Amino acid sequence: MRACYCDESAEDFRRWLEARYGTLEALNAAWTTTFWSQRYSAWDEILPPRVAPTFPNPAQQLDFCRFSSDAALGCFLTEQRVLRRVTPDVPITTNFVGLVQKALDWHTWTPHEDVVSLDSYPDPYDPRAHVEAAFAYDLVRSAKDQPWMLLEQAPSAVNWRPRNSPKPPGAMRLGSWQAIAQGADAVLFFQWRQTSGGAEKFHSAMVPHGGRDTRTFRETAALGQELARVPELAGTRIRADVAILHDWPSWWGLELDSHPAALEQLETHLAHYAPLFDANITCDVVHPARDLSGYQLVVVPNLYLLEQASADNLRAYVAGGGHLVVSYFTGIVDANDRAYLGGHPAPLRDVLGLRVDEFWPLDAPVDLSFADGTTDSGTLWCEWIEPEGAEVVASFASGELAGRPAITRHAFGDGVAWYVGTRPDLAPLLDRVAAEAGVTPVLATPPGVQAVVRHGAESAYLLLLNHGTAPVTVDLPQPAPDLLGDPSRPLRQVRLASRGVAVLKG
Amino acid sequence: MRACYCDESAEDFRRWLEARYGTLEALNAAWTTTFWSQRYSAWDEILPPRVAPTFPNPAQQLDFCRFSSDAALGCFLTEQRVLRRVTPDVPITTNFVGLVQKALDWHTWTPHEDVVSLDSYPDPYDPRAHVEAAFAYDLVRSAKDQPWMLLEQAPSAVNWRPRNSPKPPGAMRLGSWQAIAQGADAVLFFQWRQTSGGAEKFHSAMVPHGGRDTRTFRETAALGQELARVPELAGTRIRADVAILHDWPSWWGLELDSHPAALEQLETHLAHYAPLFDANITCDVVHPARDLSGYQLVVVPNLYLLEQASADNLRAYVAGGGHLVVSYFTGIVDANDRAYLGGHPAPLRDVLGLRVDEFWPLDAPVDLSFADGTTDSGTLWCEWIEPEGAEVVASFASGELAGRPAITRHAFGDGVAWYVGTRPDLAPLLDRVAAEAGVTPVLATPPGVQAVVRHGAESAYLLLLNHGTAPVTVDLPQPAPDLLGDPSRPLRQVRLASRGVAVLKG
Amino acid sequence: MRACYCDESAEDFRRWLEARYGTLEALNAAWTTTFWSQRYSAWDEILPPRVAPTFPNPAQQLDFCRFSSDAALGCFLTEQRVLRRVTPDVPITTNFVGLVQKALDWHTWTPHEDVVSLDSYPDPYDPRAHVEAAFAYDLVRSAKDQPWMLLEQAPSAVNWRPRNSPKPPGAMRLGSWQAIAQGADAVLFFQWRQTSGGAEKFHSAMVPHGGRDTRTFRETAALGQELARVPELAGTRIRADVAILHDWPSWWGLELDSHPAALEQLETHLAHYAPLFDANITCDVVHPARDLSGYQLVVVPNLYLLEQASADNLRAYVAGGGHLVVSYFTGIVDANDRAYLGGHPAPLRDVLGLRVDEFWPLDAPVDLSFADGTTDSGTLWCEWIEPEGAEVVASFASGELAGRPAITRHAFGDGVAWYVGTRPDLAPLLDRVAAEAGVTPVLATPPGVQAVVRHGAESAYLLLLNHGTAPVTVDLPQPAPDLLGDPSRPLRQVRLASRGVAVLKG
Repeated sequence: MRACYCDESAEDFRRWLEARYGTLEALNAAWTTTFWSQRYSAWDEILPPRVAPTFPNPAQQLDFCRFSSDAALGCFLTEQRVLRRVTPDVPITTNFVGLVQKALDWHTWTPHEDVVSLDSYPDPYDPRAHVEAAFAYDLVRSAKDQPWMLLEQAPSAVNWRPRNSPKPPGAMRLGSWQAIAQGADAVLFFQWRQTSGGAEKFHSAMVPHGGRDTRTFRETAALGQELARVPELAGTRIRADVAILHDWPSWWGLELDSHPAALEQLETHLAHYAPLFDANITCDVVHPARDLSGYQLVVVPNLYLLEQASADNLRAYVAGGGHLVVSYFTGIVDANDRAYLGGHPAPLRDVLGLRVDEFWPLDAPVDLSFADGTTDSGTLWCEWIEPEGAEVVASFASGELAGRPAITRHAFGDGVAWYVGTRPDLAPLLDRVAAEAGVTPVLATPPGVQAVVRHGAESAYLLLLNHGTAPVTVDLPQPAPDLLGDPSRPLRQVRLASRGVAVLKG
Repeated sequence: MRACYCDESAEDFRRWLEARYGTLEALNAAWTTTFWSQRYSAWDEILPPRVAPTFPNPAQQLDFCRFSSDAALGCFLTEQRVLRRVTPDVPITTNFVGLVQKALDWHTWTPHEDVVSLDSYPDPYDPRAHVEAAFAYDLVRSAKDQPWMLLEQAPSAVNWRPRNSPKPPGAMRLGSWQAIAQGADAVLFFQWRQTSGGAEKFHSAMVPHGGRDTRTFRETAALGQELARVPELAGTRIRADVAILHDWPSWWGLELDSHPAALEQLETHLAHYAPLFDANITCDVVHPARDLSGYQLVVVPNLYLLEQASADNLRAYVAGGGHLVVSYFTGIVDANDRAYLGGHPAPLRDVLGLRVDEFWPLDAPVDLSFADGTTDSGTLWCEWIEPEGAEVVASFASGELAGRPAITRHAFGDGVAWYVGTRPDLAPLLDRVAAEAGVTPVLATPPGVQAVVRHGAESAYLLLLNHGTAPVTVDLPQPAPDLLGDPSRPLRQVRLASRGVAVLKG
Repeated sequence: MRACYCDESAEDFRRWLEARYGTLEALNAAWTTTFWSQRYSAWDEILPPRVAPTFPNPAQQLDFCRFSSDAALGCFLTEQRVLRRVTPDVPITTNFVGLVQKALDWHTWTPHEDVVSLDSYPDPYDPRAHVEAAFAYDLVRSAKDQPWMLLEQAPSAVNWRPRNSPKPPGAMRLGSWQAIAQGADAVLFFQWRQTSGGAEKFHSAMVPHGGRDTRTFRETAALGQELARVPELAGTRIRADVAILHDWPSWWGLELDSHPAALEQLETHLAHYAPLFDANITCDVVHPARDLSGYQLVVVPNLYLLEQASADNLRAYVAGGGHLVVSYFTGIVDANDRAYLGGHPAPLRDVLGLRVDEFWPLDAPVDLSFADGTTDSGTLWCEWIEPEGAEVVASFASGELAGRPAITRHAFGDGVAWYVGTRPDLAPLLDRVAAEAGVTPVLATPPGVQAVVRHGAESAYLLLLNHGTAPVTVDLPQPAPDLLGDPSRPLRQVRLASRGVAVLKG
């Protein structure tokens, strides 16, 4: 955001701003240019944010993020117009490069795509890399509520991390099946043949430097044969009772400079997502303005920027009987990074039944004491909460806020709204909230086993994936055949090998 | 110092140099341009120091620091001339931004100010942040020997550190009273109303986003009411028996590149200041050329650059009966960063009674053995000291210098000069030196309680500040009323709450 | 490699490339420009590698390294032509600055020098710094197989590290004798007199700021007197049974970006060199294409880039009865960083009797199990090895490769080729290999004592150097006088003081 920009981009940026705000008056108000005497009196005074002796205007930074995403989208649409004319029958997509891709607001792109597609490069050194991958799969699937494509994955090692491990035996197969379990109808690879020279010569390929007599080639060929056995999975859908809210402009805003502390959106998302994933509770990851009435539970990990319309959406959801969990530093600013006045989070205070007076980033954990007698600790962040109707579920038990509320619960309309003013162990808390909301897991499995159901017009398919390296046994609710094993023999129990996969029809 | 500079600044720099040196001959000599064939044969060959493949000329770097401070001062004086004409009766000041402000030599600025003022932003996470603040207060007060203004402080959190804590209840009040205790006649805040947008919207304000029903507003209003109760403090003065020497050109010189090790001036200052602060020994922080005859003890933490006139000032001080403590790497270079020849520290060798042959920066602590049988360890730095009359107080007891002197004491004229050739635990050493010099603390207090006296024409005021969070009791030398409590009832003991303050008249 | 380059260097680079490749066709093929559509259709499209959004073409980077070394050599040759004309009888050299000097390919320079010379600045804080120095001395000596000059060393401290220790008493003498022991005929110093000003004023000098009454001056003068006692050492030679292979282009290639992991050439070299040094096995360090038939053992620490001719040289060496040790990630690419196809390391597969299918950089150590029942652990790197005739000496015993070969041995022709597919404890392994190859140490000494023999026409001189700080006794094979002691009294045992040196004739 702070690099050098050429004059052309400055000109494009100005045109984009003129289209958004119409008048300089409106832009000056939106950007709070009265602060630090930054008032613009002519359009051509406006530049992209540049290196400055102190913090650039945050609203300018935020709009430059929007403009950049739109500029890239403009390029996509230009290419799309050509392709629509030349190959009108070929569906059009473009591959999102995963959650490293902060710069593009997928929610503005996916309406223009015929099918959504994603790249996925989990790090083989990280035994929990499949959880971040899972979050991305749920996000890309939720974008259009239809099957998606895994457009790029590595047959084995990549070459661009400081240290790159091959995928151990079985890991590429397991990762491919995980994408399918979470709604993909296609898994593709980068790259076919490993180049001898060039910058990606140590990136794995379906045909390695060593040729066909290699482990990677054998495992790739085997996967193709295996996938050919279950053509009926294509087109089937995922159903989720839980929605997690995600919004690119809020991500951009959250990670701007000069905040109480440097929170990271992905860290916050995954902290809330992982306990649900581990419990085999299927989630959608959706935009805050989307209709939420179909969900039993809506989780808001950290939605710093919350437009009034989205806040109203959440209010209506709870009032109509929904269960809502909101974590700290949510609902703080509007679309132009202007703080809502009157006690945070102003647009949700009535729903949550409280007021946040102060943000208290933590440099060391603090004790938590729950109303039911249990204890825990809070990390990263605290808040000075003044309850206004909310019931105190847990309080701080050490530190400067000792005795003050940490986690609250508020009955609002026909629903319930929880507020989590610190980072506790989220697993037992989300467990309790999900149970109260009537959300049930797909299946109780041994730790490390992922269970997802793909629903077809006639049948449902339970996919079981063992992300661990020890073999495990999973009990099934009713006998079902494993389509990857002997389809004629229904099983009551499935034995999953290290990194094993089963597809049970029933 | 190494960024790009425009042609204008190069031209200004040359003019400044011409005024300082008169001839190119003099500049070449001052900058030692014979080294590395850097001789200038025309003024317009001279540039500000720039990024270079190796170390730029240190004398050039040092003069660029002087020039930069003078250039900013020139701007101040220009503005001052206008104000003197327009508002001749309004005193003029400008706010120094604390000890992060290495770039401006306050000693050249304060003669031009009517009143000296300072910003202070101690970090609430740091339980010792008040000690660094205290050092800055003593420095700014010593600049003119008159009351000063705390021109900016935060009502609670700032927004520019990576993680920003609010000030806990009572902390803002305590910090305000500390400035007054150390000689301030005014405490002001940045900022009045917390902006909704802009780069400082998460910087605290007297009126927060939440309005008047907030802790910060209540504590700010209460402070104003409390200060109104003690108008008689205004104009009273501080008296100190101890001076610590500080000089901006020496700071600049010390932190130039290509030294035996990267010493930091502030670290060294605070290491020497903290034990005196903790013992309630009031200190001035003054320029090395200032008249020192009024002090019982002068401490020189690390005065790398020492002009001959200042060395003579120190010599005269000791000869006249003063007590002097000099720490390592002092008196090494002249005003142009040229090493004094003939054994370090050449301009003080006779006063200290020794010669330093070699500098030995440490990568691990070494043992120290005192002549009185006690032991300690030395960190950061050692020196190969050859005594020439000085008595050895402590020797190294491990490492390559084992058996050689580490700390010495030298009777010189009517006074005594100590030399500390490593970093020991300075508290017992300064305790011993202060006692020998006849310096007595303001008051013996429990740990964490600061005691300072402000002297008025008729009365003296003992200010007691509890920087800890546990309540403590302080015994008073004679009964005195607490002006913040019941002024009619003299106390023999003062009970200070967590972060408590008392103002005792007597 | 990624900074900005002026147009002139781009033009020079093009001319150099045209001389190397002749046609654009050849360059396009050598650089694999088909990858990422980087094909050049005109010479002036070619630029030096610049900052890019992703990895620049590796072959371009590699050739820019070659070009840079050649450009500097061109400058040397230009100066040499002048000197040959003006001072035809004065030998010409230029000082290499040690193993930090990755940028110059010494093997292309030394044929043009009359005598090879080196700078050496071991860090006094590092108790093993003499081992890296030793490697550099063996490398510079091997370049011409004749005595060399230590052209620069510090009498004591330097000034350019973040923290700089003086050399403790005796260390400068010891380091000087080490250079002589490893073949130097001259040891010189930077600098004579310590400058008062300038960027190197804290770099030690033979005459320090303190003048002649300083430890450094005394030790420097004493060294000169001592060296004058053994003029007969000049011109004597070193003999080595072991060669370690080193090649600058391979170093450049190894440390390019986008590799399986960031291996460092010097770390790898020293890991293999140190056990041989500690065992007093004298080594040459030579180019891979050099005649190797005179060596009992050749060690290849990590020769990523291996031209076919050098591979043939190694094959002939083993076939002729040589013993070869090859560590991982060797023989991977050709002179243009193009991977050899057909199973790594393709040019040596027959010699080593194996095929490497995959590279497995490690994030944690793995267990190793030797065929003889001993165990160890492997760090940094593993490989998936498929034996094709080689005997398995050690296998992985944990991790994803558990049970697969880690270290192998292959009889080939009249010789033996070892392959080390991980980083084990190399001391026992090289011990075993050296014994099998018939290599014997100069002398068995206590730990920390270096023993080297300089061979003259009539006599041999055993130099013993105690790099430790505890005195030790060394038993001699036969009585010999210490030329630095009493030359008339032959000794059976030599007592070496802390940092002591002896020169035994016999």
